[in-house]
Amino acid sequence: MKRRQFLGAAGVGLAASAVAAPAIAQSSPDLKWRLTSSFPKSLDTLYGAAEVFAKAVADATDNKFQIQTFAAGEIVPGLQAADAVQNGTVEMAHTASYYYVGKDPTFSLFTAQPFGLNTRMQASWMAFGGGEQLANDFFKKYNFLAIPCGNTTCQMGGWFRKEIKTVEDLNGLKFRIAGYAGNIFSKLGAVPQQLAGGDIYPALEKGTIDAAEWVGPYDDEKLGFVKVAPFYYYPGWWEGGAMLHNFINLDKWNALPKNYQAIVRAASAQANDWMIAKYDNANPQAIKRLAAGGAQLRPFPQPVMEASYKATMDTYAETSGKNADFKKVVDSVIAYRGDSYQWWQVAELGFDAFMVRMRQRG
Amino acid sequence: MKRRQFLGAAGVGLAASAVAAPAIAQSSPDLKWRLTSSFPKSLDTLYGAAEVFAKAVADATDNKFQIQTFAAGEIVPGLQAADAVQNGTVEMAHTASYYYVGKDPTFSLFTAQPFGLNTRMQASWMAFGGGEQLANDFFKKYNFLAIPCGNTTCQMGGWFRKEIKTVEDLNGLKFRIAGYAGNIFSKLGAVPQQLAGGDIYPALEKGTIDAAEWVGPYDDEKLGFVKVAPFYYYPGWWEGGAMLHNFINLDKWNALPKNYQAIVRAASAQANDWMIAKYDNANPQAIKRLAAGGAQLRPFPQPVMEASYKATMDTYAETSGKNADFKKVVDSVIAYRGDSYQWWQVAELGFDAFMVRMRQRG
Repeated sequence: MKRRQFLGAAGVGLAASAVAAPAIAQSSPDLKWRLTSSFPKSLDTLYGAAEVFAKAVADATDNKFQIQTFAAGEIVPGLQAADAVQNGTVEMAHTASYYYVGKDPTFSLFTAQPFGLNTRMQASWMAFGGGEQLANDFFKKYNFLAIPCGNTTCQMGGWFRKEIKTVEDLNGLKFRIAGYAGNIFSKLGAVPQQLAGGDIYPALEKGTIDAAEWVGPYDDEKLGFVKVAPFYYYPGWWEGGAMLHNFINLDKWNALPKNYQAIVRAASAQANDWMIAKYDNANPQAIKRLAAGGAQLRPFPQPVMEASYKATMDTYAETSGKNADFKKVVDSVIAYRGDSYQWWQVAELGFDAFMVRMRQRG
Repeated sequence: MKRRQFLGAAGVGLAASAVAAPAIAQSSPDLKWRLTSSFPKSLDTLYGAAEVFAKAVADATDNKFQIQTFAAGEIVPGLQAADAVQNGTVEMAHTASYYYVGKDPTFSLFTAQPFGLNTRMQASWMAFGGGEQLANDFFKKYNFLAIPCGNTTCQMGGWFRKEIKTVEDLNGLKFRIAGYAGNIFSKLGAVPQQLAGGDIYPALEKGTIDAAEWVGPYDDEKLGFVKVAPFYYYPGWWEGGAMLHNFINLDKWNALPKNYQAIVRAASAQANDWMIAKYDNANPQAIKRLAAGGAQLRPFPQPVMEASYKATMDTYAETSGKNADFKKVVDSVIAYRGDSYQWWQVAELGFDAFMVRMRQRG
């Protein structure tokens, strides 16, 4: 498949000049792009955002700019989406930056930071707090640009075969968790495991692993973990809000007409809103069904949360000592977090906490 | 000023057909619209969203579709924006639905509901919980369509000359508060006052009024209330998240090419994200400056919150008995609120509450 197609550009240019109309040939070429998603179609909210984005672009351009979406594995495996953008196999990907933590731990921070920013804070840090500049300065090395496009909202802590009552219960725990958060769990004595989505259920069933984190109620429900690991812990402190991005090859981006660039940005915002709203709509229903189906909801005990917080800050300091990019980004996040929560505790949390209290009373 | 202008449509159509190009004349006409905002330019986040929206539309169409934005009062007063859209004086407005509560109390519910939905819940209710359908069924009577475009995030309770320690302290309190929430304060014994933004400061200074609510730290700071009414209460329980909308005249909307409709939707999402992120970025800095400048932060006492909650539910029931549209919408909101907070108390509030606790410890 050709990755780009201009339809009779010279001819249209001539015709346009003949009637002194605006530069139509430059601004609205017929164009086909490919987008590889890091997600399977079964994760209809994560994968669905790419479809919503592509449809918005097509609708805005009268189908002149068509972006075909591919699920993980159709062109490249989900965790190689960034490489496919970097080397130009595809023009763009819809993915999570933290999947590429193996290249550089700095990647992890643009998606979510353990004990970092919540969903809205991550968005405001990106847009106004310096995040987007830091991200795109960093991603330039990999020849792509990143535009925020969705967020999973605060994730759950995962499914455990046995209860976690003390920090010591983490010792030796075989926990399916990937990326930077895995390093933190190592520091807490756990043994992080990397397993693809489809392999988690049988591993939990056989007891090859003791626990697994995935996303939140709506996505977790589909994998049926409640039957083999009923203790469902919260919050997923390593993902207070996991932002997805569109990664776009810089050469392809720079070659886009300015109006197509504008449309890509606006369509990314539309898909961003769609994903967050869809999770916020679906998770309440899913958690009710999960609880009715036997899920035992458990908050991580405070001492576990506090030990995890300390392990996180220690891990940040260690990585910062070795990696100047990481230090620059994590310092920005930590400062932003402090100011944001100082405000959040006033109106936002004051409102939400009261509303929860009244609901509990009935 | 002409409200719509097609630039040489016939000529471009002829040229396009000569080269067998797509139907450019139909899909990308030159078009000029006017947008009246309900806000003054000094409220740079509320007014600014209209500018961000209009720029996104212009950028996406290579300046073919130009929407000129006007501040409150330039074409019509801010509170007459909906009328101007209804009667076709302007093609569209950026406004808050609850300003039109005088026409029908149902208008109030599409912006915010006292003890209702928070910012994200309001967005998900609109997109997936039936809100958009309810809104546009209702707005059809007024010949406009509404597209979400921004949110103030959770507002503050306002500035008080004296502390509020008991429910009785509300008795006779002359409180600058408008709209449906004013009715609820009446039930609590207060005397709601309607005053334009510029009249609030002198009224507080002279003691003509005892208290005033406005928006949140960033917008409130500009009006200098801290000098005359230093007790700054929270949360603004009547606006857990106040959604703004683009109101678009239905005849003008239906006459738009489909790709321009798509661009308007995507640009509205972009301005939506911009406004929320800008408030989330600016409020933390503003509340720090206000506190340093003498603002005395106070939570409404629990008995005041609970009495307000009861007064709100009673007021909802009364209005529902008289107005079938209101009942349909408020019933939808209340059901959505219950499910949403049942989920919110798990991961979202679990995460935020812990983060606030750790910040307070330093």
